Amino acid sequence: MVAKRIIVIGGTAAGPKAAARASRLDQNAEVILLQKAPELSMASCGYPYYVAGMFKERDKLLCTPAGVVRDPAFFAGAKGITAMVNTEAVSIDRNARIVNWMNSAGESGMLAYDKLILCTGSVPKMPPIPGRDLKGVHTLHSMADADRMRAWAEHGRGKRAVIVGGGLIGMEACEALHQAGVDVTVVEALPHVLGFLDSELALLVENHARAKGAKILTKIGIAALEGENGAVTRARLADGREIPCDLVVMAIGVAPNVTLAREAGLDLGAFGGISVNEFMCTSDPDIYAAGDCVEVTNRLTGKKMLAPYGDLANLEGRVAGENAILGDTVRFPGTIGSGICKVFDFTAASTGLSERRAREAGFDVITAVNASPDKPGFMGAKPLVSKMIADSKSGRILGFACVGLGDVNRQASEMAVAVAAGWTVDEMAMADLPYAPPYSQAIDHAIATAHVLQNKMRGLMTGISSVEAKALFDAGGPLYILDVRGPQEFEEARLGLGETLIPLGQLRKRLSELPQDKDLPIVSFCKVSMRGYEAQRILESAGYTDVRVMEGGLAAWPYMNEQ
Amino acid sequence: MVAKRIIVIGGTAAGPKAAARASRLDQNAEVILLQKAPELSMASCGYPYYVAGMFKERDKLLCTPAGVVRDPAFFAGAKGITAMVNTEAVSIDRNARIVNWMNSAGESGMLAYDKLILCTGSVPKMPPIPGRDLKGVHTLHSMADADRMRAWAEHGRGKRAVIVGGGLIGMEACEALHQAGVDVTVVEALPHVLGFLDSELALLVENHARAKGAKILTKIGIAALEGENGAVTRARLADGREIPCDLVVMAIGVAPNVTLAREAGLDLGAFGGISVNEFMCTSDPDIYAAGDCVEVTNRLTGKKMLAPYGDLANLEGRVAGENAILGDTVRFPGTIGSGICKVFDFTAASTGLSERRAREAGFDVITAVNASPDKPGFMGAKPLVSKMIADSKSGRILGFACVGLGDVNRQASEMAVAVAAGWTVDEMAMADLPYAPPYSQAIDHAIATAHVLQNKMRGLMTGISSVEAKALFDAGGPLYILDVRGPQEFEEARLGLGETLIPLGQLRKRLSELPQDKDLPIVSFCKVSMRGYEAQRILESAGYTDVRVMEGGLAAWPYMNEQ
Repeated sequence: MVAKRIIVIGGTAAGPKAAARASRLDQNAEVILLQKAPELSMASCGYPYYVAGMFKERDKLLCTPAGVVRDPAFFAGAKGITAMVNTEAVSIDRNARIVNWMNSAGESGMLAYDKLILCTGSVPKMPPIPGRDLKGVHTLHSMADADRMRAWAEHGRGKRAVIVGGGLIGMEACEALHQAGVDVTVVEALPHVLGFLDSELALLVENHARAKGAKILTKIGIAALEGENGAVTRARLADGREIPCDLVVMAIGVAPNVTLAREAGLDLGAFGGISVNEFMCTSDPDIYAAGDCVEVTNRLTGKKMLAPYGDLANLEGRVAGENAILGDTVRFPGTIGSGICKVFDFTAASTGLSERRAREAGFDVITAVNASPDKPGFMGAKPLVSKMIADSKSGRILGFACVGLGDVNRQASEMAVAVAAGWTVDEMAMADLPYAPPYSQAIDHAIATAHVLQNKMRGLMTGISSVEAKALFDAGGPLYILDVRGPQEFEEARLGLGETLIPLGQLRKRLSELPQDKDLPIVSFCKVSMRGYEAQRILESAGYTDVRVMEGGLAAWPYMNEQ
Repeated sequence: MVAKRIIVIGGTAAGPKAAARASRLDQNAEVILLQKAPELSMASCGYPYYVAGMFKERDKLLCTPAGVVRDPAFFAGAKGITAMVNTEAVSIDRNARIVNWMNSAGESGMLAYDKLILCTGSVPKMPPIPGRDLKGVHTLHSMADADRMRAWAEHGRGKRAVIVGGGLIGMEACEALHQAGVDVTVVEALPHVLGFLDSELALLVENHARAKGAKILTKIGIAALEGENGAVTRARLADGREIPCDLVVMAIGVAPNVTLAREAGLDLGAFGGISVNEFMCTSDPDIYAAGDCVEVTNRLTGKKMLAPYGDLANLEGRVAGENAILGDTVRFPGTIGSGICKVFDFTAASTGLSERRAREAGFDVITAVNASPDKPGFMGAKPLVSKMIADSKSGRILGFACVGLGDVNRQASEMAVAVAAGWTVDEMAMADLPYAPPYSQAIDHAIATAHVLQNKMRGLMTGISSVEAKALFDAGGPLYILDVRGPQEFEEARLGLGETLIPLGQLRKRLSELPQDKDLPIVSFCKVSMRGYEAQRILESAGYTDVRVMEGGLAAWPYMNEQ
């Protein structure tokens, strides 16, 4: 048997994984990895933490858990892979099954392949605005970007930065630069940052970032970047305002890097990514593709989408590497869309569809917001606010998001499995999760969220979200707002919208103080709205017909400064 | 309609939850809670942390997240529930549907019920040994126990305690007393502590506890407790050894408290718990039961079992409360067996079946042990060691356990959902989990564990567990042990069993140094055995026929002191 030659193009995440899997499955195969950058296997999701100065050693982004830098010698010795760095694949001749390459020393050549795996990644999007080529305008996408921004941030104290885009990378860059002593302004054109979240939760993240000292501007675009002597000095907003700055970070997202694939005539999808089937095989049976450059299937909608995430790149690369050796045997099932992000002391995470995206996908949805601590109070509980989204007909959970100071990681991880497994709200409400006081509540936060949603689905509770409640208050119609917390809690913080305080424990005896009109709209709430829910049950039992619980209570109310 | 009266017996976890659910669902129902102890809704899983002095205020174990003590006034005002404390239900007249009660003031009475919910909990098991009634012999089960042990621990510095039983409570008590400055010895009759774990992982927990200064004795029972002037002064082991001590904690488990139910003639199960159906209804259609006193169904084996855990008590209580009001509408699906435990800086967790229990239940199992960090090294990674157990025919995951210094909580929680959802190893291998460097590896630890097991199931990797490897070494037959780490790692720590060091990167070139007998048994390993696996692939490709990877590598090797 003649040894197979596998060529992998791209050396960040999917590429090395595909190459390693292929090499392990067939020790006789010749596996060649072409990488345009000087580095291999960069932990690119770690760039913001490197910029922040959380660690000084650049090599930490490049080495194995045992501390060995993943350079060509490592790939040759440990993996039996020939890694050619500083080497760009410039074209593919599919008929001859040849890749043409050129390296940074000006050398070029051609390599024949039996199977080719494209892991060409993505490129940062650049908005078409004047001034984007000024000095001081950066992206945070490559190791070279990270090195430049780290060098700048080392002397960043007292300087000013504008971040264009409040997505994952934008908010991570915001924290990183703020940690470096930089005065940071995030400018986001959409109604709120972190577009994977619905507004109720995203607004809480914004409040937290502002409380930490970052400026967050939303619903406004950048019109132009302006400078002096070729270097950026200010960002001009669409409304004419100017923000002086020494650095601009463009973080409006990434686009799949498909130049090679397009020029080779491979099929592309509707979103511009390389089309692959479930085996990660392109329209050419000898060419696979994986990572940011491909379109994958959303397991909830069944539709194709771009999903440029490091964890998926690894899983896709493993599938591509395996199928390139063994034939099409392993299927990549697609993504549900899971993400997590540190924003100062907050964590923000989402899995599955947000309410907005679920509605866009045509689902008839029902949702619940729940605020409750991650652990018992005696163990140093920290607050969490979650939102669960379900299909109102089948009860299937479509998505879950969670933000807060507490252990969001556990909540989002367990819910990512529940969403992928197709669990209903009723199934989640009975989940058997590990419990001990250092790790969770006896009724885990996500289970409690399922209980709230279950109560809503069964008509036991009528809820209203913070955003809806604010709109109702602002509309100015007849409305009775009932706070059922204790007097001391009321002294410490309140909505300040003309609400009446009747502590829950007194409500049954003080029903006569309520308006006589039993059809008057009433919104009840407490700190997290557990007592608000008890109040609703009491008021409905007393004949009131339009009582709504403000979901998540004061803990999820985003319209004032943090308490 | 005449208002229903619901009587709930037991006020710790399941009882208050059942009462609250019933009251919320029917505001007109009269709900009465009978509680033998003076307190209600005690966070009993928090007792060890109270004993340890992690917090001083006893009330923290009794209050709501908003800081209100859950006393009878709270239950009346907030929940509309009549809670009678210091009141014991002494008998049930099922024909008349009456509960007879007696309180600590010597008063007694009877209460008629429409529906009765038994949440009588459990009682600590006491071994039938001499001296168990001596002063200084405690259990850690009730609030009164916790108060007594807290008072003792406040002056515990320099004193000596023996803990009988190395299960969850025993190991938590071990840490609690050690934190209070007590010299602690845990005595466990079984081969290792934490019986929900298999030995490979339990031995790692023992090593950690020993490294922290606790003494852990296993495979030995207590023969007698001996004392002076009525107070315990020493524990005598089955082999005659004596351990001087000032305190003994009996922690050999709990038995369901079914006295009331038995005397009322309700059906009991094979394990001595109250028999209930999936609606939490007993053999009497007017009597429900929930919490530690019942037997529930194991969802993996289909068999009944005792599952005395606080989280399940809450879920069961919610079901019982609902069905008592609405008729049998909500089903409790049973347990998979999930637990988590803090042991000093380690966390130990398990969900589903251990290998031992899976084999006992008749499954044909395949397992994998994986050692890998919880996060990238540049984010301050901490080690985890996991074991995944699957049905070798269907590939269904039957269980997962994880121990270590790292974030076990996320791993065990996501796997608890995967096990309950019936996922296969292949499905877990493709899970789409939230990833960012502060929270996980790009390939999450549990996914990596699934990858190892997948490789074993497909014959790509042949593994051997640490315990099996130790037995093989001890047997003394022909064996070549190959360490493929780097020279510096070898200097820092090694097995010391005559292994040969050939760093992985040199292995392909140095194959001639290996034994010529291609059928010689070889065990390869590295720090975590990723490189050990690469080595196996290389050696097999070179014609060696009996190469096994020591799973988890040196990181999972429990037979020497911690590095």
